Amino acid sequence: MSQRVKVKQILLDENTNYDVVVKGWIRSFRNNQFIALNDGSTNNNLQIVLEPDSITPDILKRLTTGAAISVKGAVIPSLGKGQRVEVKAAELEILGDCDPEKYPLQLKNRPSLEYLREIAHLRFRTNTFGAIFRVRHALAFAVHKFFNERGFVYLHTPIITASDAEGAGEMFHVTTLDIKNPPLGENGEIDYKEDFFGKATNLTVSGQLEGELGAMAFGDIYTFGPTFRAENSNTARHLAEFWMIEPEMAFYDLEDNMNLAEAFIKSVIGYVLENNREDLEFLAQRLEEEDKQKPQQERSELGLIPKLEFVLNNEFERLTYTEAIDILKNSKPNKTKKFNYIIEEWGADLQSEHERFLVEKHFRKPVILTDYPKAIKAFYMKQNEDGKTVRAMDILFPGIGEIVGGSQREENYDKLVTRMEEMHLPVNEMSWYLDTRRFGACPHAGFGLGFERLVLFVTGMGNIRDVIPFPRTPKSAEF
Amino acid sequence: MSQRVKVKQILLDENTNYDVVVKGWIRSFRNNQFIALNDGSTNNNLQIVLEPDSITPDILKRLTTGAAISVKGAVIPSLGKGQRVEVKAAELEILGDCDPEKYPLQLKNRPSLEYLREIAHLRFRTNTFGAIFRVRHALAFAVHKFFNERGFVYLHTPIITASDAEGAGEMFHVTTLDIKNPPLGENGEIDYKEDFFGKATNLTVSGQLEGELGAMAFGDIYTFGPTFRAENSNTARHLAEFWMIEPEMAFYDLEDNMNLAEAFIKSVIGYVLENNREDLEFLAQRLEEEDKQKPQQERSELGLIPKLEFVLNNEFERLTYTEAIDILKNSKPNKTKKFNYIIEEWGADLQSEHERFLVEKHFRKPVILTDYPKAIKAFYMKQNEDGKTVRAMDILFPGIGEIVGGSQREENYDKLVTRMEEMHLPVNEMSWYLDTRRFGACPHAGFGLGFERLVLFVTGMGNIRDVIPFPRTPKSAEF
Repeated sequence: MSQRVKVKQILLDENTNYDVVVKGWIRSFRNNQFIALNDGSTNNNLQIVLEPDSITPDILKRLTTGAAISVKGAVIPSLGKGQRVEVKAAELEILGDCDPEKYPLQLKNRPSLEYLREIAHLRFRTNTFGAIFRVRHALAFAVHKFFNERGFVYLHTPIITASDAEGAGEMFHVTTLDIKNPPLGENGEIDYKEDFFGKATNLTVSGQLEGELGAMAFGDIYTFGPTFRAENSNTARHLAEFWMIEPEMAFYDLEDNMNLAEAFIKSVIGYVLENNREDLEFLAQRLEEEDKQKPQQERSELGLIPKLEFVLNNEFERLTYTEAIDILKNSKPNKTKKFNYIIEEWGADLQSEHERFLVEKHFRKPVILTDYPKAIKAFYMKQNEDGKTVRAMDILFPGIGEIVGGSQREENYDKLVTRMEEMHLPVNEMSWYLDTRRFGACPHAGFGLGFERLVLFVTGMGNIRDVIPFPRTPKSAEF
Repeated sequence: MSQRVKVKQILLDENTNYDVVVKGWIRSFRNNQFIALNDGSTNNNLQIVLEPDSITPDILKRLTTGAAISVKGAVIPSLGKGQRVEVKAAELEILGDCDPEKYPLQLKNRPSLEYLREIAHLRFRTNTFGAIFRVRHALAFAVHKFFNERGFVYLHTPIITASDAEGAGEMFHVTTLDIKNPPLGENGEIDYKEDFFGKATNLTVSGQLEGELGAMAFGDIYTFGPTFRAENSNTARHLAEFWMIEPEMAFYDLEDNMNLAEAFIKSVIGYVLENNREDLEFLAQRLEEEDKQKPQQERSELGLIPKLEFVLNNEFERLTYTEAIDILKNSKPNKTKKFNYIIEEWGADLQSEHERFLVEKHFRKPVILTDYPKAIKAFYMKQNEDGKTVRAMDILFPGIGEIVGGSQREENYDKLVTRMEEMHLPVNEMSWYLDTRRFGACPHAGFGLGFERLVLFVTGMGNIRDVIPFPRTPKSAEF
């Protein structure tokens, strides 16, 4: 099998007139002569040309879309339009048939994204999902590359946990108890001492608290792992299982944190613009075609690639929550009561419609909002001197809303404990976390980025279920 | 904060006589003058020199091990032994105190690994765990780098799943049902339609089956994510939650698979040898000291770094299970009944003692065993023509045992279904998996590598709980 060459390499190679073995799946077969072969290394197909009459009728009729074949032949300059080179087949072997009567992916009737979600195990084989998941791969690699180059340590925080980082958010229980007949203690409650871990455990909602433990030793760390929310949200923006990236940095204040987050997002977008041009061009065209079906005012103003380049080349707008409230209060949709939630006063939690107004109408660029009211943010955020706000930051993106949430952390032990008590959090159980404020505390900060939201933005897709291989959502855990 | 420079950079920089701000934690303070400062960027400390009498007694007594400080000063050539440069402090600020009466990490009484496991939230701050987790980071990055360079797509396979890849292995239940009062159906059984996903779900034991779906589209994919086993194994080799790497390649046979696995292991070991020399040297010294406490025959024959170089520079021994059985049957420990499990005949499952004999005594190098009896291997492995064996491969490492398990997969639909039926697996429920054999099937192969076993081998540590940040084991899910 040593001669096998991937399609991507053949298409990139300047040379012609050499022999290769190629293996892949038939995307189309026309005129009993031209096979478009795809092996997943690129969205582009390699044209295989059969000698007329070289193939028996028996084989010919098995050359159907989806069949796996192996071809030996010569790479030659192509005379036809649409490709620089093609392979003139000398030998052809069918490795696996694909019955056209049963195969759901036929070129003729282009399947909808909804239908493809139902056959998520096969959708990787389409151009759209091929491009999406190659881009997802490239973004993931760019994440590791960015942090590795800056000396961050990749920390695998636990998935199964007995703690709840945010003090909020529905969690999944993890247990080996017999749910039908769980052991009960003398008080009639479940006896979790009998459970695998000897206590009640859940799936993590965030690795941040454990990440802070790492930052107090390595300086800079990041996590990149799955997180879970058992919320019954059946929307195009929510998943029960998703991947999150959470850097945490000792000796960073809020401004350092914003600078890092902005540099990070620009770096990974820059990486795919450089390395996945073909995939992005395909997705841009898909988006353009999809937009044509929509009314004028719902269409994207910028094409996909110009949109990514715009993010790369412009500074994110930075302003405080308080400044944002002023803008929103005086905005046209607020005065004319077009918002579903009218902004009446300082302290209001911002809804998606407000965030979109700021990003898409007012500033027309990514926005970083800082210094939110402490009442609507998590306990661990650093309290400002005003006694009202915390050193939070949210990064808001067009079409996506919040893509990053972060803050400088409260490093003062007494202030942190007081806040935890106000919020009725179990101070004693979190003694391990508080040790970071007991022993060598320092200013530090961090943020979380929902990886699928980033992939959604970069691919221009509209539903988060289309950018993770096998989406987990209420009532759905297929494959 | 813009002037802050990391310790690693100062120690690498050829220049001297420039001003810096450094921030980190005090590792030691001696003679009221010399601070060893660590900021996690490297295991090495930076020497900070205080001017005599420049510091008030009040500050002096707060300069304790573990305290976080910020120092402004000049990088100058060091006159003392042990360092090329040092920082002459002009300003010093204590960012966070560390009470020596309460701080568990004092240089004087070197804590045991067992004790450090109990304070896993602080153990990152020791030299040993600093080195271990920087090596772990480097190995993780090397994994992504290896596959990215070869055009593999990183596929995030699901963590919550309704399927069981191996048809074996204890699993953790994932549920949002009220365990105390679960809804029951008319038949008196739990009504999982009421559960979050509308069915019973578990934590994944492997991403392989979903990985195969990806390989049939992208050609080459890999996973790198957490996997779970609810086995009550309280050993130095088992974790309930661990990270696994599972590449899956279309058009690969068993030999291609072995070649890839061997190249992969050598590549990531080569990466840390090149990039983490200081960490490895520290760990090598630790191992040497630990070995001195042991009886002669239990000591490592090679030091840590020579051991890694040996793996890098030697071909792994490849032989079949049948050949291995012959060697074992005729081996001295078998004949003299030193083995706990005497090898009587072909078909026996190999125990750890047999694997160690082959690797550590007979071949004295990593070994790849292939073509195991089908009765002791998973359903999806390709059946050999002999009707008895399958195209499995296990890679066995000294001191670790099985580090990789893989196989060529059975791509023939009928053979696969027959085998599943023999093994009483739910063929209908796995229809999605069988579609890979219905539509464009092709020869393919893959393997799984337990990441923590790799880290164990590379760091020379003896207990797997010391190479994952927060180990999950029976009755233990702290932090």
